[in-house]
Amino acid sequence: MARALRLAERGAYTTRPNPMVGCVIAREGQVVGEGWHQRKGGPHAEVFALQAAGEQARGATAYVTLEPCAHTGSTGPCADALIAAGVTKVVAAMRDPFPQVDGAGFDKLRAAGVEVQSGLMEAQARQLNRGFLSRIERGRPWLRVKLGTSLDGRTAMANGESKWITGEASRRDVQRWRARSGAILTGANTVLADDPSLTVRLEDASEFVPPLRVVLDPGLATIARGRVREGDAPTLYLHAPDAKPPRELAAQRAAVDVREGRFDLLAVLALLARREINEVQVEAGATLAGAFLAAGLVDELLLYVAPTLLGDGARPLFSGLGIEAMAQRTRLQVVESRSVGEDQRLLLRPVAG
Amino acid sequence: MARALRLAERGAYTTRPNPMVGCVIAREGQVVGEGWHQRKGGPHAEVFALQAAGEQARGATAYVTLEPCAHTGSTGPCADALIAAGVTKVVAAMRDPFPQVDGAGFDKLRAAGVEVQSGLMEAQARQLNRGFLSRIERGRPWLRVKLGTSLDGRTAMANGESKWITGEASRRDVQRWRARSGAILTGANTVLADDPSLTVRLEDASEFVPPLRVVLDPGLATIARGRVREGDAPTLYLHAPDAKPPRELAAQRAAVDVREGRFDLLAVLALLARREINEVQVEAGATLAGAFLAAGLVDELLLYVAPTLLGDGARPLFSGLGIEAMAQRTRLQVVESRSVGEDQRLLLRPVAG
Repeated sequence: MARALRLAERGAYTTRPNPMVGCVIAREGQVVGEGWHQRKGGPHAEVFALQAAGEQARGATAYVTLEPCAHTGSTGPCADALIAAGVTKVVAAMRDPFPQVDGAGFDKLRAAGVEVQSGLMEAQARQLNRGFLSRIERGRPWLRVKLGTSLDGRTAMANGESKWITGEASRRDVQRWRARSGAILTGANTVLADDPSLTVRLEDASEFVPPLRVVLDPGLATIARGRVREGDAPTLYLHAPDAKPPRELAAQRAAVDVREGRFDLLAVLALLARREINEVQVEAGATLAGAFLAAGLVDELLLYVAPTLLGDGARPLFSGLGIEAMAQRTRLQVVESRSVGEDQRLLLRPVAG
Repeated sequence: MARALRLAERGAYTTRPNPMVGCVIAREGQVVGEGWHQRKGGPHAEVFALQAAGEQARGATAYVTLEPCAHTGSTGPCADALIAAGVTKVVAAMRDPFPQVDGAGFDKLRAAGVEVQSGLMEAQARQLNRGFLSRIERGRPWLRVKLGTSLDGRTAMANGESKWITGEASRRDVQRWRARSGAILTGANTVLADDPSLTVRLEDASEFVPPLRVVLDPGLATIARGRVREGDAPTLYLHAPDAKPPRELAAQRAAVDVREGRFDLLAVLALLARREINEVQVEAGATLAGAFLAAGLVDELLLYVAPTLLGDGARPLFSGLGIEAMAQRTRLQVVESRSVGEDQRLLLRPVAG
């Protein structure tokens, strides 16, 4: 299963909106076939693995990181394919909560006399597809906030200057996190200040599906700053219902409710989930990042800490948290900590309570 | 020499104001004696090692982390002892810049026909005794600023509440850094806010020399807050020349020049060096820590980063750095990074330029 999980991860930049899935077929202790889901519309992991195994799939065990599908989507049901190939046992890391599967794959296998086990390395499998699972189970994407900061928790000078706090290695590393995101989300202030392109620029030749660029811009005040619409990636402006979009705006747009001058952020995420976005990476300033955090909508914080000090006149990491006593502080858990060039990279998740 | 350096480090809490020194005597590839300097007034490392080696020192090589002394202080000159014991070769990590040694130990050895080499693992030896070397070579102690901070660079709530940002493991770890410091320095605001005792509380039974507690308090406004004078450790108040010390103040005090309401921090450090302080650990708020940093007097920053967020209303790490553009930022180098409980501990040093 560990091997199947690693195979699954090869699809991190390309399977969206589908989950990453890996499959290893083993017979008498020998791997006879393996595969992973590569791209929406393409064959599922099981199909690749069965093709590789050929006749040797008969009487074999299939290890899959997610319950085999039972429905006909872009491809035929994998449960049927496993049965037809003569696989006698299926070990899955987890059930697929996708409404058209959700146990139906296991049922179909069992009905055909295939032995089924589920739950092996389930935590790792859930971790792998946290975006897909969040969308299906919670109706909103997994939200990651990426920030580059100094040791004293500053993301930009008072005048907005922020190039570059973190090192080159960190900025390269960010590209890989962008590549696995279904959307990169930013706010109007960041677009006005930096005119970012928010595209993925990988150093190696890895294939990736360009993430949707999402700009939260109530009054569509930023459209003169056009780099976020350049290149191959699609762009989506989210604006207030009363905004007046210019006719020639060459990008998608949608209205989201605004209350007291602020977007309903849960509605923003629900909208993105309906557009099949699994993971959102927020790359914005202290105000928007703070608003997501204060709303309890941040699932993970990807923090690049540069060994510098910018002083207390510089801009903070998060604004508007409304914390006045230690007891109200936001607690997080360090999921991973490592050096990236001269910076420290921390992956953190809020701790409940 | 690596062994000798490890031996030397055993004296980290007790040799002050003397340097830490370790000595290994080897003959024909066998260690025949080892020792380390334990305490001011006690025997030097070489004496312990020679005692252990006994007759086997004859014709042996002595590895010492610092040039053997040539003068009679609390003990007789080690160079003479090595010669008398019949050691034929001395390998030192570095020359001792202490004025009464400073090459005289090597000269004495060479004059007696002992082969002398110096410079083996010198960087490590300098690192070990960075406090002693700073005092002798620069006339001021090595200055370490210790701070506990949230991820967003905050050391206390707006109201001063700061118990506890960092975890228990970090607070225990700090005690070991205190134990190796000749002085713990704080400011009047910290004493007023926290009434700290600034003593060393080690969990194990390690011996240590209680560090001097230094309070920078221009007008002696904090003496009602007495915990900093309790216990076995000495306390030194540094005040403005025009302060009126109460007669009954049971602590040492000294006047230091104040300019525009601020202490002359270099004069503070020079005064501490004259009192034979090798390493100073600053445990203070953003203003004093920032003043030392802005004055270019911080040699290392010991930062405990807790996985929490306190928000932008909380107190900053450093105030008064006067940084307005990225080009003016303070760059540091991560010397060491590790986990301490749930916190990250970073040891950093400013990078020139």
